[in-house]
Amino acid sequence: MGYKLDYISRLFQRTSKKRIEHYVISRIWHLLNDYDVKMTPQQYVSREQLKYALTDVYFPQFGFHVEVNEPAHYHSEENINRDLLRQSQIETNTGHKIFVIDCRENLEGIHKQIDSLVAEINKKVREQKEQGTFKPWRPENEHNPNYWKQKGIISITDEISFHTIENICLLFGADPKKTKRGFLRKGGIGHPDFPDLLLWWPSERPRSGWQNNFDEINATITETHSDSEKKVQHYRDHSNGKHTRVVFFHYKDILGLTNYKFVGIFTNDKEKSNENIGTVWTRIGERMNLETGQISNEKKEKTNANIG
Amino acid sequence: MGYKLDYISRLFQRTSKKRIEHYVISRIWHLLNDYDVKMTPQQYVSREQLKYALTDVYFPQFGFHVEVNEPAHYHSEENINRDLLRQSQIETNTGHKIFVIDCRENLEGIHKQIDSLVAEINKKVREQKEQGTFKPWRPENEHNPNYWKQKGIISITDEISFHTIENICLLFGADPKKTKRGFLRKGGIGHPDFPDLLLWWPSERPRSGWQNNFDEINATITETHSDSEKKVQHYRDHSNGKHTRVVFFHYKDILGLTNYKFVGIFTNDKEKSNENIGTVWTRIGERMNLETGQISNEKKEKTNANIG
Repeated sequence: MGYKLDYISRLFQRTSKKRIEHYVISRIWHLLNDYDVKMTPQQYVSREQLKYALTDVYFPQFGFHVEVNEPAHYHSEENINRDLLRQSQIETNTGHKIFVIDCRENLEGIHKQIDSLVAEINKKVREQKEQGTFKPWRPENEHNPNYWKQKGIISITDEISFHTIENICLLFGADPKKTKRGFLRKGGIGHPDFPDLLLWWPSERPRSGWQNNFDEINATITETHSDSEKKVQHYRDHSNGKHTRVVFFHYKDILGLTNYKFVGIFTNDKEKSNENIGTVWTRIGERMNLETGQISNEKKEKTNANIG
Repeated sequence: MGYKLDYISRLFQRTSKKRIEHYVISRIWHLLNDYDVKMTPQQYVSREQLKYALTDVYFPQFGFHVEVNEPAHYHSEENINRDLLRQSQIETNTGHKIFVIDCRENLEGIHKQIDSLVAEINKKVREQKEQGTFKPWRPENEHNPNYWKQKGIISITDEISFHTIENICLLFGADPKKTKRGFLRKGGIGHPDFPDLLLWWPSERPRSGWQNNFDEINATITETHSDSEKKVQHYRDHSNGKHTRVVFFHYKDILGLTNYKFVGIFTNDKEKSNENIGTVWTRIGERMNLETGQISNEKKEKTNANIG
């Protein structure tokens, strides 16, 4: 039946317990009616692990988040204020934009809000197409290391996500045998050509006591260990010098498949790290040239708010 | 949040386990984008009680059924043939039309089928509006006996459905006290003005041993009793003469509310009834004039197939 139908229908199904959210999300997709636009859930972090998910649905091509607030949401001042704070944090730190659909309104009112969101997305698509920056949703490329190897540049906006560690190795020309230590799998290996770079595939799930936490808003990963001695030792090992890691974050996607998603290049953050917290890694690059190893950032689009 | 949002979002939720069906149904609704069009599940008969439901979704204003066939459906010749037979039965006996969405196709293929269904529905709306026969979806009227009392005529195409037996009484000016026998509720009472008419509210659920089965395709209701003596006696009581019943069929709607839906005027069918089956009631009228008691049928629209 095709990957996109499978993907989107599972995305709908995932929200089926919250029926208004579900109604809104299906409407956005159907009215957008554009196969090249990718709509995703918040992927890396499972809802169970956070007190609240980042947002309900995300459009990675535009940095647009959609938050669907069912009427019950507005019954608590605390909810409302916490959300406003979180939204402003996300917008400030990531440059993303959050659209809130207020479901206290009636059908016509909700439809109007969705219409204007859809118009905003369509406008972005047109703008990006005019500027030649539009990256259509191509699942078959996202998961294919050979495609990116040939392209020569990887960027977090490409939504690159491999199903295996072998594919990460393939992309960088690394030897997959080196990822194994007996029956164990290492958490990362050195880049074959650039000795200062570590290829790292951390996970939210504890592995041999190691525990990683990905803060998408602040673009940091905290690496700790359940054994406090190991945590302190690891912190000390990374409290000096510059350690750089090309990161593929592990998660299970909406189809239930294992994925390692390219989330950028990170270094040890000496200010944020300490013996209590563990080692904090901060993103320093969003793009990488595979051949030269050069690391850079995406040009940020100026929003209207920045012009004034 | 409004009745229609509640209704439609629950209709979506009901199909959420079958995710492709769900995707298709939400798309039809969102692309139709017409608040005046009513989309319903098969209401009177629960899926558990039949080997298979009649159809997945129904548009009562046009007599359009939609059947969403997931790919697995086509793996069995038996399924396919049974469906074709059932579809032709429905179309022949009811004058309804069945649209099948074949989900073996990819996203584009499925979308195309939905687009053409939506175009057909829009065409019907236009035609009915031109002919002055369009009945917009008005839930507030459907459930209001005073509205129909004032109107003076009830028809099965009006989707009249009351929440209480008291409301049925109100419509006909009957005394609701007469519906009770001590703590028991009778299954029906005589019409206050037309002694030949019984106001009847049967249910698929057994009540004091009485069991009714509504065959929507053939427009018959079979009335039996778990006690075979009572069944035979009831058959004999109705094997002679003409017995006429104004029927409000009991079911739980998608919001979980009790409903008694006007499904027409029925008489005892002497050919179909017997001691084994019980008493079979066949629909003889779809419309009733409340003041005169006159019973009639809706004019059937000629389909293109009939013209040739």
